[in-house]
Amino acid sequence: IMEQALPDGTKLPPDWALQHPEDYIFAMTETVPVLLQEYQVRGEEVVGIGIDFTASTVMPLNKDMVPLCLLDAYQSNPHAYVKLWKHHSALYCADRITSLAAESGEPWLRRIGGKVSSEFCFPKLLQIALEAPEIFETMEYFMEAGDYVVCCLTGQLSRSACIAGFKSYWTPEEGYPGEAFLNRLKPGFGTKALKMLRGSLLAPGTAAGTLTPEFATKLGLSEHTVVATAVIDAHAAVPSAGMLRENQMLMIMGTSGCHISLSKVYREVEGICGIVKDGVIDGYYCYEAGQNGAGDHFEWLMRTCVTKEVEEAAKSKGLGVLDYLASQAQKQAIGEHGLLCLDWFNGNRSILTDSDLSGVILGLTLSTKPEDLYRALVEAVAFGTRKILENYENAGVPVDGIFATGSMAKSPFVMQTFSDILGKEIRLVASQNGPALGAAIFAAVASGTLPLDEAIQRLGKTKQEYYTPVLDNKKLYDKLYKEYSVVHDYFGRGINPVLKTLKSLRKE
Amino acid sequence: IMEQALPDGTKLPPDWALQHPEDYIFAMTETVPVLLQEYQVRGEEVVGIGIDFTASTVMPLNKDMVPLCLLDAYQSNPHAYVKLWKHHSALYCADRITSLAAESGEPWLRRIGGKVSSEFCFPKLLQIALEAPEIFETMEYFMEAGDYVVCCLTGQLSRSACIAGFKSYWTPEEGYPGEAFLNRLKPGFGTKALKMLRGSLLAPGTAAGTLTPEFATKLGLSEHTVVATAVIDAHAAVPSAGMLRENQMLMIMGTSGCHISLSKVYREVEGICGIVKDGVIDGYYCYEAGQNGAGDHFEWLMRTCVTKEVEEAAKSKGLGVLDYLASQAQKQAIGEHGLLCLDWFNGNRSILTDSDLSGVILGLTLSTKPEDLYRALVEAVAFGTRKILENYENAGVPVDGIFATGSMAKSPFVMQTFSDILGKEIRLVASQNGPALGAAIFAAVASGTLPLDEAIQRLGKTKQEYYTPVLDNKKLYDKLYKEYSVVHDYFGRGINPVLKTLKSLRKE
Repeated sequence: IMEQALPDGTKLPPDWALQHPEDYIFAMTETVPVLLQEYQVRGEEVVGIGIDFTASTVMPLNKDMVPLCLLDAYQSNPHAYVKLWKHHSALYCADRITSLAAESGEPWLRRIGGKVSSEFCFPKLLQIALEAPEIFETMEYFMEAGDYVVCCLTGQLSRSACIAGFKSYWTPEEGYPGEAFLNRLKPGFGTKALKMLRGSLLAPGTAAGTLTPEFATKLGLSEHTVVATAVIDAHAAVPSAGMLRENQMLMIMGTSGCHISLSKVYREVEGICGIVKDGVIDGYYCYEAGQNGAGDHFEWLMRTCVTKEVEEAAKSKGLGVLDYLASQAQKQAIGEHGLLCLDWFNGNRSILTDSDLSGVILGLTLSTKPEDLYRALVEAVAFGTRKILENYENAGVPVDGIFATGSMAKSPFVMQTFSDILGKEIRLVASQNGPALGAAIFAAVASGTLPLDEAIQRLGKTKQEYYTPVLDNKKLYDKLYKEYSVVHDYFGRGINPVLKTLKSLRKE
Repeated sequence: IMEQALPDGTKLPPDWALQHPEDYIFAMTETVPVLLQEYQVRGEEVVGIGIDFTASTVMPLNKDMVPLCLLDAYQSNPHAYVKLWKHHSALYCADRITSLAAESGEPWLRRIGGKVSSEFCFPKLLQIALEAPEIFETMEYFMEAGDYVVCCLTGQLSRSACIAGFKSYWTPEEGYPGEAFLNRLKPGFGTKALKMLRGSLLAPGTAAGTLTPEFATKLGLSEHTVVATAVIDAHAAVPSAGMLRENQMLMIMGTSGCHISLSKVYREVEGICGIVKDGVIDGYYCYEAGQNGAGDHFEWLMRTCVTKEVEEAAKSKGLGVLDYLASQAQKQAIGEHGLLCLDWFNGNRSILTDSDLSGVILGLTLSTKPEDLYRALVEAVAFGTRKILENYENAGVPVDGIFATGSMAKSPFVMQTFSDILGKEIRLVASQNGPALGAAIFAAVASGTLPLDEAIQRLGKTKQEYYTPVLDNKKLYDKLYKEYSVVHDYFGRGINPVLKTLKSLRKE
């Protein structure tokens, strides 16, 4: 990830995050032959390849589908490189798209909860058009990195309907946002943008082609190996959990949180990140919601509230600091720390969709300890998840099975707390590499080896142990959640806009 | 201070804090002769002695005015010892007195902001009556330690009107709370209590007598040396600041905060600790307000949010941790940290009088650093002080000159922040021992050497440097204070009682 400078030393402004497309090819061609040898698999035994990728991670290419950054003429131009999903400097473009779309009542705006994030595709493309017209004029294609890899492997142009659906608001019925609307962002922008996004869109589990002779050789595989269309990394974890039923939800609990639900019905849901028909599993609407901050609250705690005493106590018990804090926190009764937090240290994605919100701690006393703050923050993230869950259910999208994966899901204390607060059974994805396993499941389907439901049933697995809510705990947490909800609405829904005032004073 | 056990090993319950009266006599008789020699002062040159003391710090005595704890029969009885001001185990007695007084509309309740604190005199006496009736029956006097020392020195019974006014609600017109009311707390309690509190009450700067021959010898002073009546320690700092005009306020900024104002008018003020006519300076109503937490917020910060990195950075600059945090914090623009706090980590004394309130932090982000929290807490304590100031002014008690003393007042950053937030000039008491100097001023007056105003003018001094508000800073802080006020009322006045709910869940 390039955040400071390009390979030739060209400095990057703040909030930029780029990648280099040759890294993707290098990683594949280095890794696959080694794995084949290590696991004693013959190339021809591999029937399919699946790709999961971050998104929207996008790059401009020329008419021969060569990324512009690989051409001598553009090596020093930051806009010629891959803009990573977390490239945030197109925020002003995102805001411009939001306000124009709200003004003209664009139908896709409701499917993404009413707000365009700077992490989506169109803001990144608009940023190029506005800041680097020479690139915008030259480029012939604008591609998601996942699609680019698939095109390299197959030598054919195609795109992922999963990525386009969630990141570019594409639907089979309506296509991308309309040309007329996009042209209002900048004269001619829409006409050219839609041309640059051409290519047929394939649902997850669909074959995009077979390996080119060149890549078959490089990877040590057969030219018959089928390449499945790409899938967003988080979403690829869905089949790895064995999810195939309606009303199941997967929580990806990393530094941030992602909540993917499957449903047979289409319902508009407040503060959703996206709703895509057949987005992951054919026949289901795939709903995505998210928390801007989840595990990163605990990284903040480690950077800010871990005194020498705590570090030494952890060391003396042979524990990492967070595990030590968890061991202390779990001795407490519910409510014993007297704290209540809002989990908005990185803003709020769902259900308030407001990145200018910030974190709140109530109930501090002179005896508040780091482990109290740790426990209160775990509870806060779980309360935030409960908001998302109830929001799905209130909108008519029930959730009756929950699966979890990601770094936070490794802590039994965290998972029991989530189960108590959500009042739901939680099962853990067995694989340590859920997205990779999911991509492989889609490859099995794309190659015709297994139908989707059988592939998921045979390959998607959860761990044996699972978490069930303790009724007495749930009752106590219900009381705290009621308080959380009042404070959530007070600070989050503009009853008292102080958090936004503080943010704007900060910018002043 | 005995908080764990008596000298004979008898264990003390939680929330007890006792002292031993012989320590007071020992300290005086050890110190005074050494000081005379060190400063080459002859005994007969000392015209008066002034005593400042913590209050309500009270003890039971027998008919010969001997503290019961000095008698063999009571050496193992905790109730025979001096109950220090911060002895908090009489809280249930304080609450009983509050509710009964509110019920019957006792007039003195309005002068103490509507709530009896466990630090006052009557709750401590009621605790003895309820828990140790054998002591209550035996004792003949109940005395403040300051009065006890004066009685020892003079051999005569008298009491301080300053201490009795603030700690026992005594006024020259109405005396103590009424016998009938006190008898309702426990049959016979009032009749006996008022007898045990007998003794003439003397205003500050009044002679209580001259030294007994015994103490003249022990101290190396003359029998003509006048002993002034005792004064509460915080209140004794008033003359040391040179305060003599109406509408001046002294801030004592230690671990907690105390705000003493002088006024010619009597006004009922919300959430006040006490209003006493002639309480410190003859001819003025003396108003006392307070913050349960001031400097102790920073001790909490040191215990909780000081990582190894911060400690090392402070060390490398040769600074203490708080000075280092101040040096980092003062580089920031106002509002830059994006935080807003409520300074209630130890509850709220004035103006809400609610020890079940707790601290709040708004505006936390993943980039919030310990110096941000430090600065926000300094500002919060200053906002809390501004509430007290405005509360005085809104009630018709203007404040146009502010003086400060105490550990927090030593930091130029803290004092400039207070000046900017209060919008007032602040002068610092010159003496490092303001209360002791004030006691000496009262001794000069009591001995007839100087009239009060001249004694204050000649001996009470402020430092040359002082703090004036920077107008631009004040304007920015006005914005933040407006936000503070909204949140203050929301959480503090029961609009959302969540802080009290959290406290009660904690106790459950």
